[in-house]
Amino acid sequence: MYGAGDVRVETIADPTIEQPTDAIVRTVLSCVCGSDLHPYHSMPTSGSGTTMGHELLGVVEETGSAVSTVKVGDLVIVPFAFSDNTCPICKDGFHTACPHGGFFSGLQAELARIPQADGTLVAVPGVTEHDTQFLPSLLTLSDVYLTGYHAAHMGRVEPGNTVTVIGDGAVGLSAVLASKQFGAERIILMGRHESRTDLGREWGATDVVAERGDDGIQKVLELTDGDGSHVVLEAVGHMPAYEQSVGVVRAGGVISRVGVPQYEDAPVGFTSLFGRNITLTGGPAPVRAYLEQTIPLVLDGTINPGRVFDRTVTLDEVPAAYAAMDAREALKVAVTV
Amino acid sequence: MYGAGDVRVETIADPTIEQPTDAIVRTVLSCVCGSDLHPYHSMPTSGSGTTMGHELLGVVEETGSAVSTVKVGDLVIVPFAFSDNTCPICKDGFHTACPHGGFFSGLQAELARIPQADGTLVAVPGVTEHDTQFLPSLLTLSDVYLTGYHAAHMGRVEPGNTVTVIGDGAVGLSAVLASKQFGAERIILMGRHESRTDLGREWGATDVVAERGDDGIQKVLELTDGDGSHVVLEAVGHMPAYEQSVGVVRAGGVISRVGVPQYEDAPVGFTSLFGRNITLTGGPAPVRAYLEQTIPLVLDGTINPGRVFDRTVTLDEVPAAYAAMDAREALKVAVTV
Repeated sequence: MYGAGDVRVETIADPTIEQPTDAIVRTVLSCVCGSDLHPYHSMPTSGSGTTMGHELLGVVEETGSAVSTVKVGDLVIVPFAFSDNTCPICKDGFHTACPHGGFFSGLQAELARIPQADGTLVAVPGVTEHDTQFLPSLLTLSDVYLTGYHAAHMGRVEPGNTVTVIGDGAVGLSAVLASKQFGAERIILMGRHESRTDLGREWGATDVVAERGDDGIQKVLELTDGDGSHVVLEAVGHMPAYEQSVGVVRAGGVISRVGVPQYEDAPVGFTSLFGRNITLTGGPAPVRAYLEQTIPLVLDGTINPGRVFDRTVTLDEVPAAYAAMDAREALKVAVTV
Repeated sequence: MYGAGDVRVETIADPTIEQPTDAIVRTVLSCVCGSDLHPYHSMPTSGSGTTMGHELLGVVEETGSAVSTVKVGDLVIVPFAFSDNTCPICKDGFHTACPHGGFFSGLQAELARIPQADGTLVAVPGVTEHDTQFLPSLLTLSDVYLTGYHAAHMGRVEPGNTVTVIGDGAVGLSAVLASKQFGAERIILMGRHESRTDLGREWGATDVVAERGDDGIQKVLELTDGDGSHVVLEAVGHMPAYEQSVGVVRAGGVISRVGVPQYEDAPVGFTSLFGRNITLTGGPAPVRAYLEQTIPLVLDGTINPGRVFDRTVTLDEVPAAYAAMDAREALKVAVTV
């Protein structure tokens, strides 16, 4: 990406093993993330550009001498952040803050160098790149589904809860699906794209609120006897979504954010969060922490989060994928090589 | 209080029963709160003034016709907020947000009218106003100790945790005592008044950090192998304390605030909270929710939170009590009638 709206496909040198802990992974499926649309809107023009993409399902091509948990030929899920999976922070389950880790970019590509391969990659047992029925859902474990899951996890969604999900993008819909897995009794999806909210209903949304701002807040309060929602999962990242979250959350409730905040300061004082004991939580999903428990749910059909993909393009067509997602013509676009 | 620094003792009409759900309580002990010092610093001059005080241990003098859970002569704890104790929000344990409740003022007085008496007052069984050894600790259940307890509760302090408490006022010290009750392994108290931090050590602080700002942050990080504190209990309310909390909290950790925020906006974006999955929680303590479980701990001597009182004055001397607390000459001042 060379600036807002300017995505180009270029041929660069293949990556090589640089550290004994590296692996090289060949892409089977990658995709475009809702968070990629933030720079697509606002990135200043850059002469050198920046590589894009952080979601990847691939096959191990080569491993460094110190890599022992994956081997050449394994189908692997690449979390959107690499991590050592052994430090105290990873042991706490917050791999995205691993002091030896970092966030990927450049995974919308044919090949990728994966640092900390032992800590980062998880092989999918018994599945190959030819088992195409599983691939889209496995790809969502790289980011989007487990980001929605992380929202619900940090929000501590539990049976009996009313959950409001703000945003009908692929992460918001994933948050609906995850809330249902956590046993939420009522799931209110705030979104106004009917094809998307229809999938949300299939995945567990009991109510859809198309209104935004104060009208949307009033609608949610009406649906909840005026009390608001125990948990709000915010999957947008813009200030109006934050304000909407504060407006619909119940006293003592939780706002869990997974939309990357496009602001630094926000209201947290007596009249917004403090006075009603509102908890604010969330952040970049440590998807690595959730992979082992979630892969079997995909393989046995319990969940099918790959349904968020409604278009597939080849790597050459990636610029069009950004444009289609930005125009809301596509919910989420998968990328093949 | 008629403005910053201007506290006067005045004779006004005795309160009377206004609603059948009211009770009249005669003061045994009241006190001055750290949060009373905020208006003591900043209240604009007012011709009519405002009544002060929200912590009270007293004896029921009279009850409205609908009051059934307390009777004339009972020694009762008056939480700093009244509530119905029956609505969904109270059932969730967030009485300070009860839609039929509110915050008290005017309890630095001889008599008080208590709305929602059934939902608000809790009688102390088998204890009278003459059992003086229990009275200071019972008074702390009106606010200060249970505010520290609420900080630890919302911070989800658990065995093995490192907890940092910011502020060595009576609430901060109470948060130390509560963290110890929750099983915290290490308790770092940030404060620089040695007589106070000494009590903190007696109550469970394993480390005291006198430095503030960046120096204080560095010290806490050194004490925690660079990782920071699982839980931070913020008992001050000013922006520097918020910034210090962000600086010392561990990735994936919790900042729990009970100091009343003297700001509305604060940093919550990628570089402060979101990027490291920090949870921000806390608010006005619903002390009513914790009374039944805590009164026995006071009566059997498990905890002695009344030690925060290091001075007692009569009602006539209340202006001097504010001045002494403001000058840090007194930690917390009890008020008799």
